[in-house]
Amino acid sequence: MATPWYFVAVLLTILTSSQGILTTLSQSDGGYKYDYATVPFLAEVFKLIISGLFLWREMRTSSSATARITKDWKSVRLFVIPSLIYLIHNNVQFATLTYVDTSTYQIMGNLKIVTTGILFRLFLKRKLSNLQWMAIGLLAVGTTTSQVKGCGEASCDSLFTAPIQGYLLGILSAGLSALAGIYTEFLMKRNNDSLYWQNLQLYTFGSIFNVARLIADDFRLGFEKGPWWQRIFDGYSITTWLVVLNLGSTGLLVSWLMKYADNIVKVYSTSMAMLLTMVASIYLFSFKPTVQLFLGIVICIMSLHMYFAPPQTLVDLPVTNEAHPKTLKQVIVEEKTDS
Amino acid sequence: MATPWYFVAVLLTILTSSQGILTTLSQSDGGYKYDYATVPFLAEVFKLIISGLFLWREMRTSSSATARITKDWKSVRLFVIPSLIYLIHNNVQFATLTYVDTSTYQIMGNLKIVTTGILFRLFLKRKLSNLQWMAIGLLAVGTTTSQVKGCGEASCDSLFTAPIQGYLLGILSAGLSALAGIYTEFLMKRNNDSLYWQNLQLYTFGSIFNVARLIADDFRLGFEKGPWWQRIFDGYSITTWLVVLNLGSTGLLVSWLMKYADNIVKVYSTSMAMLLTMVASIYLFSFKPTVQLFLGIVICIMSLHMYFAPPQTLVDLPVTNEAHPKTLKQVIVEEKTDS
Repeated sequence: MATPWYFVAVLLTILTSSQGILTTLSQSDGGYKYDYATVPFLAEVFKLIISGLFLWREMRTSSSATARITKDWKSVRLFVIPSLIYLIHNNVQFATLTYVDTSTYQIMGNLKIVTTGILFRLFLKRKLSNLQWMAIGLLAVGTTTSQVKGCGEASCDSLFTAPIQGYLLGILSAGLSALAGIYTEFLMKRNNDSLYWQNLQLYTFGSIFNVARLIADDFRLGFEKGPWWQRIFDGYSITTWLVVLNLGSTGLLVSWLMKYADNIVKVYSTSMAMLLTMVASIYLFSFKPTVQLFLGIVICIMSLHMYFAPPQTLVDLPVTNEAHPKTLKQVIVEEKTDS
Repeated sequence: MATPWYFVAVLLTILTSSQGILTTLSQSDGGYKYDYATVPFLAEVFKLIISGLFLWREMRTSSSATARITKDWKSVRLFVIPSLIYLIHNNVQFATLTYVDTSTYQIMGNLKIVTTGILFRLFLKRKLSNLQWMAIGLLAVGTTTSQVKGCGEASCDSLFTAPIQGYLLGILSAGLSALAGIYTEFLMKRNNDSLYWQNLQLYTFGSIFNVARLIADDFRLGFEKGPWWQRIFDGYSITTWLVVLNLGSTGLLVSWLMKYADNIVKVYSTSMAMLLTMVASIYLFSFKPTVQLFLGIVICIMSLHMYFAPPQTLVDLPVTNEAHPKTLKQVIVEEKTDS
């Protein structure tokens, strides 16, 4: 692939960061006028269409050897697993939030960085240096630091006062979220199949699960607002469509990274995106800048450098250019000899 | 020296940490019953006596070759410089506090870690790897993180709202404080003089400057409470004496580190001591533990490891023990061959 992974990672950071901002902008009077559950469904369909088009173009232009496709059901059925994990994760997330408040949940979400590192090692058998482990730990610490409640903010006493079940479910949630990512990386890398074919399978199951969710919501509400397909675009604005396109695009970039880079790159992208969103919110939504946000950014940038910089550039001592600087005495002696 | 530097560093951490706790315990009704300015003076005298005794013992037991003493006034007069720098520093500190509040001053105090690193490089020409520079930066970030005002705490808006002079003076203060440490290290290492002889010179000037300060205070207050020597032990309790002994002991340990280790070791000791004091205060003074304290501790421990661990243990990838794990098929084939 000609595209370097860091270019894709930077793009993913910018788009993920825009996602939070666009979602906020798509609200009116602090709430959604549209059914938010339709957004991930339409994003899945968008990804499915794009991947289909790319696959069609690839099949048409290249020889059959380059666009590899495994149609064996034993292989295809594996692509349902990420969707299944996300389904379980969503339910665990829901259960967690009955025990802990959203700010505690947000803080615990940073655990995902660490669980991704652990599963990356255990499941994908990828080796990391001690420094890289420390960098992953620091990334989680840095994102958490940026989220520390400042003085004067509300909901003060709630941290670490929730029942133990809340924390255990939070850990399970972080584990499941990481597992979905790690399993997707495993799927994308296990053979040389075309990325677009792999995406097609992934997003087909994704779309099915999202439809199922919309139907389940309808049943839960007793169809009082009518079936989902009759009101799917209700309340949609240009911004809502941008949210859909943006979510779809970040999904496609994540898929690319899972195949040609890895989960750690993705985790760095999304963590940096969170910080970028917070900085952007200072300008866009007049958020108050805090010391902890500044500290969090410094920590995460250091972590990034620790993880990705060539190790020898980190540990080598600088070499002196001036081999043996002359003393003043030597200079005077030499000048005397010259004259 | 048989004593390893890390043993001295750990001892310094514990004693520095006790200093804050003992000082708090020496207060009654939130104030000092004794004149606090007498504490550093008596600590200087204590260090002077101890160093004198050690020097006397060293001169008596060892041959003249081992206990080196440079009595040249050109050398002796250099030992006044740390005291002079501290005098200027104290005045700058006083001026800074007229512009910024104490919590902002405390946060800015962490700059000293960075200025020490910079002067260590510029003045002592000591080279650090990029990783060690990052570790020093992280130490400053970590100590600052632990001090971030939690939600519900008072004096909320004061951070970064002081006039620019306050911040410039704060930076100057951090520079002077680092300079005093770096200059002392230069003094202790520039020749092979006995540590106790060097201490004797350092603490003689230190005692003189402290007496001058007590006299200056008397003049400022118009001798309304009488001259300092008549009321030097007024209000002293056992705890006050412990504060004096503790301050004197930490001073002696710092001197030792300046000669046989360096300023960076000292900076790590005192930073860790600050965190230790905060943890101890949770138990002793029922301080509320905060997320930021926990994060700060994690960051500082990582920084410590980054700075002092052998570089190769940090960047090397772990070697697999199982050279080529057998596949299930191989095992079955082997079992068949055996039977």
